[in-house]
Amino acid sequence: MSTNHSATAIIRIHCPDQRGIVARVTDFIHRNNGNIVALDQHTDRDEKRFFMRVEWELEGFELSREQIEPAFEFAIATPCKMKWKLHFSDKTPRMGLFVSKMSHCLYDILARYQSGEMKVEIPVIISNHKDLEEVVGKFGIPFVHVPVTAETKAQQEQKALDILKEHEVDFLVLARYMQILSPKFVDHYPERIINIHHSFLPAFIGAKPYHAAHARGVKIIGATSHYVTSDLDAGPIIEQDVSRISHHDTVERLIQKGRDIEKIVLSRAVMAHIERKTLVYKNRTVVFQ
Amino acid sequence: MSTNHSATAIIRIHCPDQRGIVARVTDFIHRNNGNIVALDQHTDRDEKRFFMRVEWELEGFELSREQIEPAFEFAIATPCKMKWKLHFSDKTPRMGLFVSKMSHCLYDILARYQSGEMKVEIPVIISNHKDLEEVVGKFGIPFVHVPVTAETKAQQEQKALDILKEHEVDFLVLARYMQILSPKFVDHYPERIINIHHSFLPAFIGAKPYHAAHARGVKIIGATSHYVTSDLDAGPIIEQDVSRISHHDTVERLIQKGRDIEKIVLSRAVMAHIERKTLVYKNRTVVFQ
Amino acid sequence: MSTNHSATAIIRIHCPDQRGIVARVTDFIHRNNGNIVALDQHTDRDEKRFFMRVEWELEGFELSREQIEPAFEFAIATPCKMKWKLHFSDKTPRMGLFVSKMSHCLYDILARYQSGEMKVEIPVIISNHKDLEEVVGKFGIPFVHVPVTAETKAQQEQKALDILKEHEVDFLVLARYMQILSPKFVDHYPERIINIHHSFLPAFIGAKPYHAAHARGVKIIGATSHYVTSDLDAGPIIEQDVSRISHHDTVERLIQKGRDIEKIVLSRAVMAHIERKTLVYKNRTVVFQ
Amino acid sequence: MSTNHSATAIIRIHCPDQRGIVARVTDFIHRNNGNIVALDQHTDRDEKRFFMRVEWELEGFELSREQIEPAFEFAIATPCKMKWKLHFSDKTPRMGLFVSKMSHCLYDILARYQSGEMKVEIPVIISNHKDLEEVVGKFGIPFVHVPVTAETKAQQEQKALDILKEHEVDFLVLARYMQILSPKFVDHYPERIINIHHSFLPAFIGAKPYHAAHARGVKIIGATSHYVTSDLDAGPIIEQDVSRISHHDTVERLIQKGRDIEKIVLSRAVMAHIERKTLVYKNRTVVFQ
Repeated sequence: MSTNHSATAIIRIHCPDQRGIVARVTDFIHRNNGNIVALDQHTDRDEKRFFMRVEWELEGFELSREQIEPAFEFAIATPCKMKWKLHFSDKTPRMGLFVSKMSHCLYDILARYQSGEMKVEIPVIISNHKDLEEVVGKFGIPFVHVPVTAETKAQQEQKALDILKEHEVDFLVLARYMQILSPKFVDHYPERIINIHHSFLPAFIGAKPYHAAHARGVKIIGATSHYVTSDLDAGPIIEQDVSRISHHDTVERLIQKGRDIEKIVLSRAVMAHIERKTLVYKNRTVVFQ
Repeated sequence: MSTNHSATAIIRIHCPDQRGIVARVTDFIHRNNGNIVALDQHTDRDEKRFFMRVEWELEGFELSREQIEPAFEFAIATPCKMKWKLHFSDKTPRMGLFVSKMSHCLYDILARYQSGEMKVEIPVIISNHKDLEEVVGKFGIPFVHVPVTAETKAQQEQKALDILKEHEVDFLVLARYMQILSPKFVDHYPERIINIHHSFLPAFIGAKPYHAAHARGVKIIGATSHYVTSDLDAGPIIEQDVSRISHHDTVERLIQKGRDIEKIVLSRAVMAHIERKTLVYKNRTVVFQ
Repeated sequence: MSTNHSATAIIRIHCPDQRGIVARVTDFIHRNNGNIVALDQHTDRDEKRFFMRVEWELEGFELSREQIEPAFEFAIATPCKMKWKLHFSDKTPRMGLFVSKMSHCLYDILARYQSGEMKVEIPVIISNHKDLEEVVGKFGIPFVHVPVTAETKAQQEQKALDILKEHEVDFLVLARYMQILSPKFVDHYPERIINIHHSFLPAFIGAKPYHAAHARGVKIIGATSHYVTSDLDAGPIIEQDVSRISHHDTVERLIQKGRDIEKIVLSRAVMAHIERKTLVYKNRTVVFQ
Repeated sequence: MSTNHSATAIIRIHCPDQRGIVARVTDFIHRNNGNIVALDQHTDRDEKRFFMRVEWELEGFELSREQIEPAFEFAIATPCKMKWKLHFSDKTPRMGLFVSKMSHCLYDILARYQSGEMKVEIPVIISNHKDLEEVVGKFGIPFVHVPVTAETKAQQEQKALDILKEHEVDFLVLARYMQILSPKFVDHYPERIINIHHSFLPAFIGAKPYHAAHARGVKIIGATSHYVTSDLDAGPIIEQDVSRISHHDTVERLIQKGRDIEKIVLSRAVMAHIERKTLVYKNRTVVFQ
């Protein structure tokens, strides 16, 4: 958390594993008089791949914000064959929300947003139904109804893309949005669409997972938040959690208990994304501390 | 638990849901001067099916052990179209163990057995490998090596069945036994073979679930204990539990963390079975309190 | 759950343990043509005390609502020395909410209330601060500011009692209300005030439990919902849950993570209370299924 | 984990927080041609204290084992005012075990020891009772009976110290050893005695925590493993875990359920200690990944 500090720079890196990367990166920051406030790294030995997140205070740092990217690219990223991203903690991300009819994830996000826990701007909320217009209205956020049918899907997705572009949305959250986005749509926001699936993936992929869980007689149910890819329910997992159930729980009870897991798991995933703690590689998500 | 009491009778019932069953069953016990020490019931509204477990003290009960079955059958079970089982708490069940090479579930069971927590007799332990012969030897239990190949499977299963029959085994526990039992074998012990599968079923059915979990990038792993049916990994689930993991966990770490879940989940399932708290109906298990 | 059924009657009982209680109670319902939809019982052997909750459909029951109480009292409760309560599922309880400055529990309850998950009426919300007036306003519920100082406490508690009486409030929920209620106030709502304490009681009783948890270096934090008695943080526990933390978590992070446990634990406790599933005996709470 | 690698060096550090520590440490390793296989760091902002664990392969490292300590001390530790420790992964630690009458933690440790999961040597097991002599005998480990009474305590502790010294024990594990060690004894093994307390500390300090938990009516029980200090049950916590219970659970059931948490929590703590992942500072334990 950078709450009590001045603005920070955050770099997330992955590259082929090689000797001396931590030394080079930390030396780069140290030589420019940067004070590291968080550093986490991970080496995947099977993939021979190195992952790192480092965050340092901008105050006193001898490179300006504009200089950091070219300097790091030249000195370290290029020689080490890094894929990397730079962010500044005082740049608030703009989040677009997609909803349908269920309110629990939406309320959970909006409550965090309004209390200041979730540090985002929410310029617009899009829904294929009008059910939640009143809820959204309570929070003074523009609500746009973009109904979707099999025939109008391509056209309506384009309409949604236009709205998101107009509002300069950085990333999307599907808060129990019950439509499947086309690969074409997903391509506009790679690793920037977060979904909540109401099962413990990969169990119970697809529709009606609580019915399937009940039929199978499981003793624990779960929820999974993941980045959306063109492959349904198969995107890189960010967060999961579970809840114990019993034979007494009807499908309706599972749905009720599941709502609590869904909303917490989705909000945790969104928080990790906003704090720039996630890094996707080959369908898996590194979640830094 | 009946630990502090005299011997008890336990009846487990399921039947079509109908009015007055609890009244009839409890009245039967009450009229014969029985003192109920535990009663749990469940109604599955979708299946319109009623489930019940009732346990009462034999001391002072006015029917002898031999009289209970015909009396209950005539007065209640037949008119109510019940499927039911009667057990006496002082009849210690005889458990057969199947193992292969891994010792963690075996040790966990034997430690509970020897400390008196798991109230069973273990007349014999069968293995398709010799690796655990020494472990079993420590506990003074007969160990029989029954190696299995694709060619000898039918014959060796028959040999195992003969051994189990000779030792008057009531039920079987597969403590990470790495062979698939044939439907023919399973038919000899319906709802009386307990397996531990090293994943959170129905995720990662089949071989090498930890490898699959690692490849999928899940954030939680689990284990599942279930009754064995002829359909692999699809039998009625008795107990499940999970453990949180992270991207740092290699497949080897998952296997290590998984062992702790496996052994606890299997032992809990075995304990529920021994205490006559499970009741299978249509591939789901009611686990009474 | 009685969601799919006609209205039900719910009786909760405790009495000295004795033979035949279940038989007598279920026979009473059966003879009057009642269809039991849920039955759960518990015997506390140390206390020699019997606990029971039974719920049956009113449709077809041969006693009118008014007749049930005297009939049951005469036939069963008096001879068995029972303490008992009767409720009807279609009588929606009226819940009073007390809040201070933090919104997370309030939002969680109001979201469930508005979606219909939490079947209560909320005639009034009282706060000692004005911070949440706007949040409450979004939901169209009367908000009354009742500030409290050491000098005005007695007088302001009386004012609050008057407001609650005027609104015919059945029970109270303290959704992170940061004032201690006087024993005199508590006496007006015995076993009908539900509080959320932000620790895993009995660890960290009193103020600033997250600071204390951080100082002690615990690896898990929790929250506890309990009925309020005159003894601070010592009332009968209804529900608890926990969350794993690490040395990385600052006090601020603990507070943030704790909010998610608090709101879920409080809402679960309120739901159990509303569904008439709790029964207090000697500072412990039986929570029926 | 260093399982698939050559031997590694492990350094654990804490020091006043200051700029450039990670850079200096990693540069030290990198310049000497070391390949880092794990690095984890933590900054405690309240304490203004920095913590780090770094592990690198010895193969190819240009300093000999003997040279590492003086070189690191001179170049980095002294200028940075570090407290630090150096270990080599191929030096197997020698663990002394203290037990009393309960076998569950003992079995759990011995099963891991014998399967090779717990990479220690166990030269001796000491007990104040003879009950577990037979269990220990199964595993071929010397068992020494050192009975303790109020009168003989000082003398018997000295006897135990002599035995431990003779067997060159590096650290001690109290596997439900029911005696309190004197501060004098504890001083011989600072941060090297690991205990398991059968409650979720700081709740239920002292004797009979399950009885206390039952009396308080908690809904979750736990266990805590911690380093032993002269202050009973107040030492730095290494690991905790919990298990959900209900009003049905008698004290005996709590004890039974608790055993499973105790053994897993203790073994996890011992594993963290053996893998040199723990670092104590001011009564809190940093547990590196």
